[in-house]
Amino acid sequence: MIEAVEALIDLALREDLGPHDITTKSLVKEKDRGVATVLAKEDFLLAGLSVFSRVFFRLDEKISITSFFKDGKEVKAGDIIAEVKAPLWVLLSGERTALNFLQRLSGIATFTRMVVKKVKGYPIKILDTRKTTPGWRVLEKEAVRVGGGFNHRFGLFDGVLIKDNHIQAVGNITQAIALARCNAPVTLKVEVEVNTLEQVDEALKAKADIIMLDNMSLEDMKRAVKKIKGRALVEASGGITLENVTSVAKTGIDVISIGALTSAFRAVDISMELEEKKK
Amino acid sequence: MIEAVEALIDLALREDLGPHDITTKSLVKEKDRGVATVLAKEDFLLAGLSVFSRVFFRLDEKISITSFFKDGKEVKAGDIIAEVKAPLWVLLSGERTALNFLQRLSGIATFTRMVVKKVKGYPIKILDTRKTTPGWRVLEKEAVRVGGGFNHRFGLFDGVLIKDNHIQAVGNITQAIALARCNAPVTLKVEVEVNTLEQVDEALKAKADIIMLDNMSLEDMKRAVKKIKGRALVEASGGITLENVTSVAKTGIDVISIGALTSAFRAVDISMELEEKKK
Amino acid sequence: MIEAVEALIDLALREDLGPHDITTKSLVKEKDRGVATVLAKEDFLLAGLSVFSRVFFRLDEKISITSFFKDGKEVKAGDIIAEVKAPLWVLLSGERTALNFLQRLSGIATFTRMVVKKVKGYPIKILDTRKTTPGWRVLEKEAVRVGGGFNHRFGLFDGVLIKDNHIQAVGNITQAIALARCNAPVTLKVEVEVNTLEQVDEALKAKADIIMLDNMSLEDMKRAVKKIKGRALVEASGGITLENVTSVAKTGIDVISIGALTSAFRAVDISMELEEKKK
Amino acid sequence: MIEAVEALIDLALREDLGPHDITTKSLVKEKDRGVATVLAKEDFLLAGLSVFSRVFFRLDEKISITSFFKDGKEVKAGDIIAEVKAPLWVLLSGERTALNFLQRLSGIATFTRMVVKKVKGYPIKILDTRKTTPGWRVLEKEAVRVGGGFNHRFGLFDGVLIKDNHIQAVGNITQAIALARCNAPVTLKVEVEVNTLEQVDEALKAKADIIMLDNMSLEDMKRAVKKIKGRALVEASGGITLENVTSVAKTGIDVISIGALTSAFRAVDISMELEEKKK
Amino acid sequence: MIEAVEALIDLALREDLGPHDITTKSLVKEKDRGVATVLAKEDFLLAGLSVFSRVFFRLDEKISITSFFKDGKEVKAGDIIAEVKAPLWVLLSGERTALNFLQRLSGIATFTRMVVKKVKGYPIKILDTRKTTPGWRVLEKEAVRVGGGFNHRFGLFDGVLIKDNHIQAVGNITQAIALARCNAPVTLKVEVEVNTLEQVDEALKAKADIIMLDNMSLEDMKRAVKKIKGRALVEASGGITLENVTSVAKTGIDVISIGALTSAFRAVDISMELEEKKK
Amino acid sequence: MIEAVEALIDLALREDLGPHDITTKSLVKEKDRGVATVLAKEDFLLAGLSVFSRVFFRLDEKISITSFFKDGKEVKAGDIIAEVKAPLWVLLSGERTALNFLQRLSGIATFTRMVVKKVKGYPIKILDTRKTTPGWRVLEKEAVRVGGGFNHRFGLFDGVLIKDNHIQAVGNITQAIALARCNAPVTLKVEVEVNTLEQVDEALKAKADIIMLDNMSLEDMKRAVKKIKGRALVEASGGITLENVTSVAKTGIDVISIGALTSAFRAVDISMELEEKKK
Repeated sequence: MIEAVEALIDLALREDLGPHDITTKSLVKEKDRGVATVLAKEDFLLAGLSVFSRVFFRLDEKISITSFFKDGKEVKAGDIIAEVKAPLWVLLSGERTALNFLQRLSGIATFTRMVVKKVKGYPIKILDTRKTTPGWRVLEKEAVRVGGGFNHRFGLFDGVLIKDNHIQAVGNITQAIALARCNAPVTLKVEVEVNTLEQVDEALKAKADIIMLDNMSLEDMKRAVKKIKGRALVEASGGITLENVTSVAKTGIDVISIGALTSAFRAVDISMELEEKKK
Repeated sequence: MIEAVEALIDLALREDLGPHDITTKSLVKEKDRGVATVLAKEDFLLAGLSVFSRVFFRLDEKISITSFFKDGKEVKAGDIIAEVKAPLWVLLSGERTALNFLQRLSGIATFTRMVVKKVKGYPIKILDTRKTTPGWRVLEKEAVRVGGGFNHRFGLFDGVLIKDNHIQAVGNITQAIALARCNAPVTLKVEVEVNTLEQVDEALKAKADIIMLDNMSLEDMKRAVKKIKGRALVEASGGITLENVTSVAKTGIDVISIGALTSAFRAVDISMELEEKKK
Repeated sequence: MIEAVEALIDLALREDLGPHDITTKSLVKEKDRGVATVLAKEDFLLAGLSVFSRVFFRLDEKISITSFFKDGKEVKAGDIIAEVKAPLWVLLSGERTALNFLQRLSGIATFTRMVVKKVKGYPIKILDTRKTTPGWRVLEKEAVRVGGGFNHRFGLFDGVLIKDNHIQAVGNITQAIALARCNAPVTLKVEVEVNTLEQVDEALKAKADIIMLDNMSLEDMKRAVKKIKGRALVEASGGITLENVTSVAKTGIDVISIGALTSAFRAVDISMELEEKKK
Repeated sequence: MIEAVEALIDLALREDLGPHDITTKSLVKEKDRGVATVLAKEDFLLAGLSVFSRVFFRLDEKISITSFFKDGKEVKAGDIIAEVKAPLWVLLSGERTALNFLQRLSGIATFTRMVVKKVKGYPIKILDTRKTTPGWRVLEKEAVRVGGGFNHRFGLFDGVLIKDNHIQAVGNITQAIALARCNAPVTLKVEVEVNTLEQVDEALKAKADIIMLDNMSLEDMKRAVKKIKGRALVEASGGITLENVTSVAKTGIDVISIGALTSAFRAVDISMELEEKKK
Repeated sequence: MIEAVEALIDLALREDLGPHDITTKSLVKEKDRGVATVLAKEDFLLAGLSVFSRVFFRLDEKISITSFFKDGKEVKAGDIIAEVKAPLWVLLSGERTALNFLQRLSGIATFTRMVVKKVKGYPIKILDTRKTTPGWRVLEKEAVRVGGGFNHRFGLFDGVLIKDNHIQAVGNITQAIALARCNAPVTLKVEVEVNTLEQVDEALKAKADIIMLDNMSLEDMKRAVKKIKGRALVEASGGITLENVTSVAKTGIDVISIGALTSAFRAVDISMELEEKKK
Repeated sequence: MIEAVEALIDLALREDLGPHDITTKSLVKEKDRGVATVLAKEDFLLAGLSVFSRVFFRLDEKISITSFFKDGKEVKAGDIIAEVKAPLWVLLSGERTALNFLQRLSGIATFTRMVVKKVKGYPIKILDTRKTTPGWRVLEKEAVRVGGGFNHRFGLFDGVLIKDNHIQAVGNITQAIALARCNAPVTLKVEVEVNTLEQVDEALKAKADIIMLDNMSLEDMKRAVKKIKGRALVEASGGITLENVTSVAKTGIDVISIGALTSAFRAVDISMELEEKKK
């Protein structure tokens, strides 16, 4: 499992458990075992099963988890998603944290899928952004992919993106692109954010690899696409919603990045229930 | 600053920066300084200023931040919330992470305030739950307070809460409460979750300090309140929304806990803009 | 194993081993195995077996430990407590650290048991305090329980305890209790430390859940108990020893907290001896 | 400050504070400041001032501590040891942990001083051992020095000490010493533990640098010293107490190591009191 | 300072200092201060000054370092590079670790400069590789830049490089490039390693952004350059030395990557000398 | 595995992998497995196999490594050193880091062996120094032993070495040795660095355990050896190379320490190749 995810799980368990789950410790014997089922309480697209499982494994290694669905599958209200066999205290102490992960990541995947469906048939990719929950970057970007989206850069290190603040700091687009081309590793594309058609021209002339049209009107997007003619990848960004994403797709741009995928989703409803002890 | 928050900020900066912000490093000199303003793009209740600031301080100590509003104040679209003076690279590299914190925490405070207003005038407290974003527990609980809510326990360590799964594991409420009373530190109250009026009776007899009515009808809540007559604190929980919270408040219960405060909010819109360099 | 305990074991092994146990590394082959017996050199109450074992497991996973007594059992001088089969280097390098844990925790359990016996027959609980060895909180509190004692709060987070310094800071007991009741999670009781009978009255009026009588005379304790009449839990604290604890128990208070349990004990004598190699 | 000490302080504050000191947070404003005095409640030798201070500095940097005694000075009951000016919350939240350190380390120094006085006039050094509190090695070894003792090795890395278990593992003293001489860094002396006078002969022949007489009778110690005649440093160890240490010193051995210095001391009594607020 | 560098410095100081620098601690008073000069013992290109300084700052903050040269400057044997004013113990305890960093990084910069001079006048960049010292990646890549070289990707995350092992795993170049284009963030270029001219054709057809010619003959390189005609960036790699780098540059390729820059350099000779105490 | 080595491997994998190996993740399925052979591309002395293996185990535990040579064996160009069976992604993502370790450590062992051969037949030990790669101390010291060398102290904690800077700080050799003897643990030898024969006399008189002759002429070394006559161990140090080491050995000194063993070696050439998939 990725180190950053391990660190987040650690943080999550530490903040919830502190020195102990005093209720469970007071009520349950360390060796008692139990079985719990994970239950969908509404329809959604499943994502996050591996982190969900990992939470329990961090508490104890002697557990087994059987999942009846995989990430990327649509589950219906009432579906049993998985069954967890573990020491009773592990089920009781890990439940909330594990569900908190699963509910949020499934929420992102579900929302992404809705957006992706809106542009079905268009030669376009829906991308995420860096507007993710701090600490959750790789998990949320993975959930976006589960939902059918694609990834923009993962951080400030795997892509050059010259934004308005950079341009202002340097003075102009041309020089900014030249500096990036010279100083950044040769393996990175150089992308520039533009607000006007004039800036599109400047970016093209400076040989940007990707041109991001920031908050442009649909009309201007079309004009930009025409100017660029495939000489750079064209990205639309800013204020794009479930409502207007299809119109944007029609402008001919290549990729659409949407911050809301990871900042305006809703956690889905999932519960975990202990099966009755037989013995 | 609280250790858990420092750890989350570290995680957040590490996931975003990796070895470097290659764009900024390629374009900007290490000693150049700049000034940026933080701008509200909609109306909301401000929360999270100290984490926001801390992000920049982690990058460099030679910065100064002047805020024109405090946590708990309502800001309007167009308001300048704060001004950050720092090395240019700090502004550019820290912007996204700092805003990601501020936008989410303000979102929680804003939503909490809406709920709290719905029960104004009733002798009732709105409480959060443990349905928080893993890794964000103390930050989100603080934001709930900023919004006028109160805190339920912070984790599994600072409150005994006997839930349905615990009752099933132990066998019955009476024994569960007895075990908790014996084994948990004397400083903790014992709370029990009940679904029926019969369970209310059992909980009362076993001297629970707090009785949580889980997903009960309004009618049953009223009956439970009557039975309990102040002998235990009464908490309503489960399925409570902005729409029905006032009705719940009218039943006479003491506190209402709402998971949605920290799991169904929306990040508010805030931006950061570099001021033009004079010199 | 609890994270805080893991961290302490790490610290302990790091401070003792540094880069290597140079004696053992110089003398013994990495694959040689051995068997060692853990021997009681005096009579005591056993506590700490799981940390003792964990020390060896941190060095290598291919070991087996058979214990002939459990935590909470009285062992006599000459008893073999356990047998450890492990790589020879693990036995030699882990011995001192593992014993240092076992000897101290058994010392605490043994001392607690002595105190508990003094109040046998009284409806009273012996409690620990926060005067524990920094870094050892959960281990020492567990040893107190092994010895028949009970736990006061584990830290500053799982109980409200308003002490003299707090009262002075706020101004008076009434206001202090009101602030705590309003600001602390609803799951926590509010305890207040008092020195005089007047303060007992004030605490009762302010509805403290627990009243701690600090360094009071036996006479005053009795008077306080009479005043309180079960409306709050009554705790005696300060200067209580093996000699006077029975007298305190007779006053009718509910619980007695004793710092000496974890700050004036003596480590018991235990040794570990390598069995002769057969093969 | 030494890294291992920082780590222990972190552990100590984390275990005590968890997410917050809920009492103090509920009662006191973040910006209120206060002054506290540290008061000796009995006579003792002071040790541990720097860790004591460091605890408060970890909570906040804007504090000042004035100490009226230095480590190694004898304080009397009633003496004011130091004055701490800090934010009120820092005083209240750090008090217990800071005192827990100071009380234990002063206890070790005080006990060591008592032992050292017993051998005054003899050309002998009192040494500590590795029977220290796990996690506290460097702190406790420093306290021994404050008390007038000297240090044996700090861990398994800065001294070769061939003990009975090693000898049994290798077969005999001669070979054990030869292996150590060959494999250990040239900068380390080779010490061997012996139980009989025959072993003393073997150790001498094998050119041990230090010979430790383990639990030998006073008579045998004298004979050993005679045999050795300055060709190796002679150490007495095992079962040495405040009562018999002078007799041991008279045998002519060079150094005496005493585990009790760090495992059978008693924490001294020190309190911290908030000064009345003037303003 | 970059987190990865801080972590390496921590590791370095911990491995060297352990619990203490026993020599210095035994000889020098904690408050004594001193001045040391850093002296070049041979001619070289300076790199690593900031890590060098940082080592001392980690030991104590009350130090000042004046450097008479900057990174990237050529120093001559006998030049005084810098002066360090610090507590005496900091100078003595930090010297070796600080020099070990400076000597190695200057070694890399010096060697890189030699290579860069060989291709002066050719429109070519000299690149580093991932054959760096584990733990030292960002430091060594920075030293390469100081020497006039440029950076290939920093790790496996900021560039797609399809190597022979990848091609074999996937089956062929075409499919490998297609998969990378689909799955990797849009901000990354896709580079492919080829061994034959046929593979160059396949890579071109599959629209690789960068084509790496691995261990090709000079003749084949020229042919490859002709084929590619600017449609992809051309990189030469494998077996390139100070001796043959000029010939490679003449083939018309765009960039040359050389593992030896960071794996076959020699640490330069630098010493640190304490100035005589005046007072 | 030693904690410091684990920490270095972590650092190495983190710097190389960041959030992911994007090439491998884009091209290869998580469950595909593969087999790779590790191939010597030149003749050398093998060292570092356990770290090499550990790198892969850190990525995934379901791997098996068969090595056909052990550390300390001479391998020839073309020899297959080991075979690694693992998930395909583990082979591809771990290859570079694992090889970077193996190539450097084998380089050190190979170079050490060359030096050791030069003094074959002389009663002398070749020692390493503290001029190791920061972060790599224990690994490099182990590689020196693999090559037939011996270890000087591992750090500043396991040996007293009074260098010229210490002497200057204290004033003279006599006092420096006295202070060390008094303050350092009794288990450590006291070594002193001298530049002149006069200093040899002073060191002898002060009873140094080891005398290091720093950069002395061969003639002076011989004279020093004669003066010392076995009363102290004699170490030669400074400017000793493959060329002059035999002459130094002839002077009669006991040990020779050579910084170049760990600072002027060259990484050897080793590659890893994926076997063709059968199924």
